[in-house]
Amino acid sequence: MKVFPRLKKFKALQENTFAKKVGQRPGYLYVPENAHGPRMFLLSFNEEVFEQKEYSDYNELLQYFRANPQLQHWIDIRGYRDITLLEKILADFQIHPLQMEDVISDYQRPKMDTEGKNLFFISRMITFLPDHCLDDDQISIFVGANYIITFQSDYEDCLDVLRTRIKAGRGVVRKSPVHYIAYAIMDVTIDNYFPVLAQVGDYLEELEDTLFGQPNKKLLNEILNMKREMLKVRRIAWSERDKLNEILRSDNNTIPDDIKIYFKDVYDHIVQVLDIVDNYRELMGNLTELYLSNVSNRMNEIMKVLTIISSIFIPLSFVAGVYGMNFSRENPDGTINYLNMPELYHPYGYIILLAIMLLILLGQLYFFYRKGWLRSF
Amino acid sequence: MKVFPRLKKFKALQENTFAKKVGQRPGYLYVPENAHGPRMFLLSFNEEVFEQKEYSDYNELLQYFRANPQLQHWIDIRGYRDITLLEKILADFQIHPLQMEDVISDYQRPKMDTEGKNLFFISRMITFLPDHCLDDDQISIFVGANYIITFQSDYEDCLDVLRTRIKAGRGVVRKSPVHYIAYAIMDVTIDNYFPVLAQVGDYLEELEDTLFGQPNKKLLNEILNMKREMLKVRRIAWSERDKLNEILRSDNNTIPDDIKIYFKDVYDHIVQVLDIVDNYRELMGNLTELYLSNVSNRMNEIMKVLTIISSIFIPLSFVAGVYGMNFSRENPDGTINYLNMPELYHPYGYIILLAIMLLILLGQLYFFYRKGWLRSF
Amino acid sequence: MKVFPRLKKFKALQENTFAKKVGQRPGYLYVPENAHGPRMFLLSFNEEVFEQKEYSDYNELLQYFRANPQLQHWIDIRGYRDITLLEKILADFQIHPLQMEDVISDYQRPKMDTEGKNLFFISRMITFLPDHCLDDDQISIFVGANYIITFQSDYEDCLDVLRTRIKAGRGVVRKSPVHYIAYAIMDVTIDNYFPVLAQVGDYLEELEDTLFGQPNKKLLNEILNMKREMLKVRRIAWSERDKLNEILRSDNNTIPDDIKIYFKDVYDHIVQVLDIVDNYRELMGNLTELYLSNVSNRMNEIMKVLTIISSIFIPLSFVAGVYGMNFSRENPDGTINYLNMPELYHPYGYIILLAIMLLILLGQLYFFYRKGWLRSF
Amino acid sequence: MKVFPRLKKFKALQENTFAKKVGQRPGYLYVPENAHGPRMFLLSFNEEVFEQKEYSDYNELLQYFRANPQLQHWIDIRGYRDITLLEKILADFQIHPLQMEDVISDYQRPKMDTEGKNLFFISRMITFLPDHCLDDDQISIFVGANYIITFQSDYEDCLDVLRTRIKAGRGVVRKSPVHYIAYAIMDVTIDNYFPVLAQVGDYLEELEDTLFGQPNKKLLNEILNMKREMLKVRRIAWSERDKLNEILRSDNNTIPDDIKIYFKDVYDHIVQVLDIVDNYRELMGNLTELYLSNVSNRMNEIMKVLTIISSIFIPLSFVAGVYGMNFSRENPDGTINYLNMPELYHPYGYIILLAIMLLILLGQLYFFYRKGWLRSF
Amino acid sequence: MKVFPRLKKFKALQENTFAKKVGQRPGYLYVPENAHGPRMFLLSFNEEVFEQKEYSDYNELLQYFRANPQLQHWIDIRGYRDITLLEKILADFQIHPLQMEDVISDYQRPKMDTEGKNLFFISRMITFLPDHCLDDDQISIFVGANYIITFQSDYEDCLDVLRTRIKAGRGVVRKSPVHYIAYAIMDVTIDNYFPVLAQVGDYLEELEDTLFGQPNKKLLNEILNMKREMLKVRRIAWSERDKLNEILRSDNNTIPDDIKIYFKDVYDHIVQVLDIVDNYRELMGNLTELYLSNVSNRMNEIMKVLTIISSIFIPLSFVAGVYGMNFSRENPDGTINYLNMPELYHPYGYIILLAIMLLILLGQLYFFYRKGWLRSF
Repeated sequence: MKVFPRLKKFKALQENTFAKKVGQRPGYLYVPENAHGPRMFLLSFNEEVFEQKEYSDYNELLQYFRANPQLQHWIDIRGYRDITLLEKILADFQIHPLQMEDVISDYQRPKMDTEGKNLFFISRMITFLPDHCLDDDQISIFVGANYIITFQSDYEDCLDVLRTRIKAGRGVVRKSPVHYIAYAIMDVTIDNYFPVLAQVGDYLEELEDTLFGQPNKKLLNEILNMKREMLKVRRIAWSERDKLNEILRSDNNTIPDDIKIYFKDVYDHIVQVLDIVDNYRELMGNLTELYLSNVSNRMNEIMKVLTIISSIFIPLSFVAGVYGMNFSRENPDGTINYLNMPELYHPYGYIILLAIMLLILLGQLYFFYRKGWLRSF
Repeated sequence: MKVFPRLKKFKALQENTFAKKVGQRPGYLYVPENAHGPRMFLLSFNEEVFEQKEYSDYNELLQYFRANPQLQHWIDIRGYRDITLLEKILADFQIHPLQMEDVISDYQRPKMDTEGKNLFFISRMITFLPDHCLDDDQISIFVGANYIITFQSDYEDCLDVLRTRIKAGRGVVRKSPVHYIAYAIMDVTIDNYFPVLAQVGDYLEELEDTLFGQPNKKLLNEILNMKREMLKVRRIAWSERDKLNEILRSDNNTIPDDIKIYFKDVYDHIVQVLDIVDNYRELMGNLTELYLSNVSNRMNEIMKVLTIISSIFIPLSFVAGVYGMNFSRENPDGTINYLNMPELYHPYGYIILLAIMLLILLGQLYFFYRKGWLRSF
Repeated sequence: MKVFPRLKKFKALQENTFAKKVGQRPGYLYVPENAHGPRMFLLSFNEEVFEQKEYSDYNELLQYFRANPQLQHWIDIRGYRDITLLEKILADFQIHPLQMEDVISDYQRPKMDTEGKNLFFISRMITFLPDHCLDDDQISIFVGANYIITFQSDYEDCLDVLRTRIKAGRGVVRKSPVHYIAYAIMDVTIDNYFPVLAQVGDYLEELEDTLFGQPNKKLLNEILNMKREMLKVRRIAWSERDKLNEILRSDNNTIPDDIKIYFKDVYDHIVQVLDIVDNYRELMGNLTELYLSNVSNRMNEIMKVLTIISSIFIPLSFVAGVYGMNFSRENPDGTINYLNMPELYHPYGYIILLAIMLLILLGQLYFFYRKGWLRSF
Repeated sequence: MKVFPRLKKFKALQENTFAKKVGQRPGYLYVPENAHGPRMFLLSFNEEVFEQKEYSDYNELLQYFRANPQLQHWIDIRGYRDITLLEKILADFQIHPLQMEDVISDYQRPKMDTEGKNLFFISRMITFLPDHCLDDDQISIFVGANYIITFQSDYEDCLDVLRTRIKAGRGVVRKSPVHYIAYAIMDVTIDNYFPVLAQVGDYLEELEDTLFGQPNKKLLNEILNMKREMLKVRRIAWSERDKLNEILRSDNNTIPDDIKIYFKDVYDHIVQVLDIVDNYRELMGNLTELYLSNVSNRMNEIMKVLTIISSIFIPLSFVAGVYGMNFSRENPDGTINYLNMPELYHPYGYIILLAIMLLILLGQLYFFYRKGWLRSF
Repeated sequence: MKVFPRLKKFKALQENTFAKKVGQRPGYLYVPENAHGPRMFLLSFNEEVFEQKEYSDYNELLQYFRANPQLQHWIDIRGYRDITLLEKILADFQIHPLQMEDVISDYQRPKMDTEGKNLFFISRMITFLPDHCLDDDQISIFVGANYIITFQSDYEDCLDVLRTRIKAGRGVVRKSPVHYIAYAIMDVTIDNYFPVLAQVGDYLEELEDTLFGQPNKKLLNEILNMKREMLKVRRIAWSERDKLNEILRSDNNTIPDDIKIYFKDVYDHIVQVLDIVDNYRELMGNLTELYLSNVSNRMNEIMKVLTIISSIFIPLSFVAGVYGMNFSRENPDGTINYLNMPELYHPYGYIILLAIMLLILLGQLYFFYRKGWLRSF
């Protein structure tokens, strides 16, 4: 009889990616079997122009990119199945093989890497799945002179609002260097934590409802599970914070100073994410303690019922038992033995006994009432 | 049957403000629907002059401000509903849009920002609500050459004592640069933590009374709730401390050295706040442990009652049961069977049995007395 | 029915001093109503001279002080009720108003302040009160060119040993700069922690005796209370340690190097205080765990008694109950029904039944013995 | 009756190696009795050449090594029993005696040592043993001008993939300085953590299955054991991280900059190891809490069964007991006593009583149903 | 009835030494009453010479020391009772009075002190006492130009292996500066932790045996006690680590660089000590949790026995009780009342009832079997 839901599978990560790569040379690109085929998008724009197109042929994309050095380009690759394509991009944009390995491994902490020709960032997006788990996907960002390349393993992402904003062209988005796009991607990614945390909040309210309503054995498991998920978010957010710190402390050549002020804003947001996550973790700690105290309280209540009923009826049963004894009224010589259970032969014996039993009952009830045990039923 | 009070709604913050802004351009001013309409106050003063007025027209206020460069001005805006007004102020006083976004978002940790033309501070005021929750409101402070601008979302605040002090003009308040006003605002804000913590202290005494009097199931929840609230205060106070540290370490141009000595005093106060908060948290941890041990102790008591009564009467009932058995006194041949329950036919059988039962009872009572189980009733 | 002692009143501190000062100008001297009236002492000495006198008139004291610049002076003020006096001292010795505020507020962490003309130190003395609480009093020390001023709120202190030592004049105490007196005061203050901690140790042994003897419900509360008191001492000692660190790292002008080596000794002592406090806290944590496991063990014992007695007599009662049934020996036709309870009519029925009951009893006792449940009675 | 598996023997480490060496001079080489006899391998290669051979004579190996200075050499020693051999190597390659002592002691944290002529690294490999313990072996690496020497205590290791890679000669492995081989060894060692952690993950799933299926008393022990093993891995991984940090911060002469970028990759991997280990530890914490709450829940269930059955039948037994009493129907004068238990003589007495008992039963069942106690059976 | 062993006396330390010295001048030498009388040893040696002698007259020792400046001397004082002697040494070797105070106080954390003419080190040796407590003794080391002075309070120590090594003269021990002897003393002291920890390991195995065999109430206390002892070792080892760190970071004049490499080895050893101690603490934490879960499990078992027996026999008793009722078979008019308990008059009534009781019994046993409650007996 399975009463607990299973804890979330927790070893998937390292099995898929790492366990199969032991001993391979660095920069070896291993693509898991269930990877998506690649889709390529190109957004090209400057203050006047805006173009957005999906390419099925990489060379075509490259050709357009090279023909328009006056534009800023956002090359947007989703799905990693085609190793050849990745190696071409690696060569054309002078990406370090180890960085490309990071892109594919899809399990990197958020980080910043200034090694090589491009600036390289890793961000993570989180999603709240219907089974109350949190999924996190990696978005890898390369920033070059007039281009930005992003890699994601899935086709869906949370960046459409940004694409729309670039298209609309309000604000400074089309007037700034490409670093601004990198900023905007990280900003959207982190802003996206808030609705996810709001969903987690809803779920916690549900758990709370259950706890205060009809708590069941699965509840503790669900609380602990979510606490563990929050730990994961905390770890990611902490790395994001470190990354942003590094960005803020980097020199003017790496990130222009007028862009950095925006990153400071993102930094404030991630700190707020950490605040909320810590608040949730404290809350889940409280829920755990309430659950456990709940179990104790219910035990208390069960024991009170048992104790009250036993304490009342066991003595009464004893009294009844006494008068069920068969001590002989007659002596062997046939005379009446007035010592053996004379109560039984008293005209009001039964009435008096019932009255005594009632007194015992009332006495006990008063005792339990005074101890406050009758209250919470 | 709801026996627990609901945990405080904990997701309000991020839902209102953040969840709706995902993907917006930085500096986008989003005002929550339930924001108050703005009220504008101006305090203008120097050593001789003091004027205080509420303006309904911003231009009038600005005109007066510009016409009196010899005075120090405290522009005091309460309520954010009018975006147009905020954008005018932003332009007139060269406030960075990201800073204005921080003002409105109303969920920023205390911080100091030297970016841009103004010095920008965020402080948080706490209030103890009747439902035993702590509310915290943001006060945003911009310090310029001869003016200080404060923003708050509510009309009420704790700064009236300061306004009265400026009006009275005792001490250095009207002789110092505007940084002194900034100091005074933060000082009052943090001094205001003490009466709030005193209220929390009263409430903790109430909880303690309940724990030692008639503890109920809701108590643990209330303790844990307040512990969580204190965690919030701790987080805010910690950020205040960081902010004050940053102020104390800043150079002479940012904050004049003769003002800094006052900030050192504020710093000492926030450290005392942290001391008190940590003391409360330890205390609430103790209350939690006492509550749980209380539950165990009551269980112990319940079990003792059950055990004493059962242990006394179950054996006695057995004895009574034995003499309720119907073993036949007669052999099939009609002769008397002296082996079957001869006790029943003994002239003093009943008396002796009652005496034996009394002995059993006293023996058990002595056993329980020696174990100390009869004491605490 | 109050069974627990009340937790110590914990909000006194901030109520008295802080809650009433919100919004006052910095340096405002607020004296709590229950403050003592001031007493003034002056110790004046150099290698040859030693004079000690209580003054009732401050001007007289000041006059003597000014007339004897060749002597070192220890001005020793106890009790704060006279604000005018404090303001005179403040003016005469160029004490910063904020520092005087710290003196009076009487709730400052130990610290060092080099601001202004005097060196300013705050130390805290601890006392073990008869109700097992720790009281801590502040001693404020100003060090000038040839004088040292100390402020205390109470008339009693732990510095008489030092005064006697100065009078005796052994060692370097009358040959060194006044910093040495400051050192000596802090040294005595911290050395005084050791007898207090020894008293706490005695009290912990008492608690331990109670735990291993007749634990009662109040015990846990008392343990937790003392743990909280130790947390307070820990916090104070930690600040003392920081202060001493700051002294040791200060330059030669602030504290002469040949005095610093003495402070290093004080530093070692405060580290030992921290060691002992941590040891006590670990011990009290152990006592708490033992108390809780004790409660569980007693529950176990109670349950064992209940289980053994119930398990033995309930089946026996059942057997007795069976033979108390009234199944008819006679068939309706008057013939004997040999199927209905023939045992009752067996000549040795009763004897055999008693034997069977005895066997059941012994079987159960053996079972409980084998499980080890009969041991610990 | 042993129900718990024994905790893993935990003192083996210091007993074998340390306890026997107290007071020996530094650099004294103590080899434990159960050490393997040495096996010597030599891999020599450059871009064109590759040779791999096991030597039984050290001098032969040395001769080949000295005769081929144009090649890079990997001298691979497994087993420490031959002290003389170790001392020869020590002399020939100018290894510091203390370093050789570290090699043999076989219980060193991962570290980097730049003392002396060679670069000296210690790494640790982990293995998951069938009895669910983790074993960790040391690999010691000396890097010289054109050689690398590795020492291991066992014959088996996880470096065969690397040897194959060198033989295959793909990538930069045969074109780089010997530091690259050092990097590759550490990389393989750390990559090898992932399959081991995957095995741990499988085991944790098993434990989880047991917890949600048929938890037994040994389970908690097994969880706590594995938690302790993970603590060990955490400690090792943390030292690996420190070592890699030191490598990354070392100057260009110690480790060439173009090799360092590879170490950065290893660094990322060890951080991922730490993430997984922390995740496992959190999970095992959760399993522990679930186990304990499980025990409480089962207690609750046991008590519910007891309470329901007792509460129903004890009162019913009392009622039956009452009507088993023998109050006399006859007065002494032979008249009928209508007061003594008239129910027994009522024509429908028995039927009515059975009905009343049924009502009591139903009433109680309804009470328990309403409390939700009948649900989870 | 004392069932728990007493917690170890924990206040001895500060009582003996500190409480009696409050207010004394710094450098005041207080010797506890139970101190040993001093014994003086001198080891003098260089590469050729080795002499070892116990002196009863200090002046003789000093004379020999002064007469042989070409030798290295180890002056080895054990026992502090003779204050005059200590003051002579203090004067002759220019030891600072505060340092001598540290020597005698015998409760100093390991530290390094470069103040004054000598290098001053404090180390602590630990011993495992038969009552399962750890004792720690102080060894104080002064290092001068060609001499080293050590002070210990007891006559026994763990340095004889070192004295033997010097006598044997193997290795560099007689060729190095006296710092090497200081190193060797600290090395032996710390190497001596390993056999002590091995003894602790044996004791922990014993505790573990008890836990899995016949756990008793004292066990938890013993585990917690040892945990506290390990905390003490941890604190000492941590200070040793700090001291060694300071030594390693000191300049070449303080400690020659070629000696420092040996200290690095000691540093590695103390880190291993910390590893083992942390491992033990984790293990003792596990034992605590196992103990507590053990208590719960035994409670569960007790309750199961009670519940099974009660649940089986209480209903059966009820049934028996029903048929013990005395409902009248006769109507008042003498006719047979076929409604009152006709079962009693059925020819097979008794047999059928016994069969029903058997069915109830089997049904319940099946229920308990299905719940798995019958298993673990």
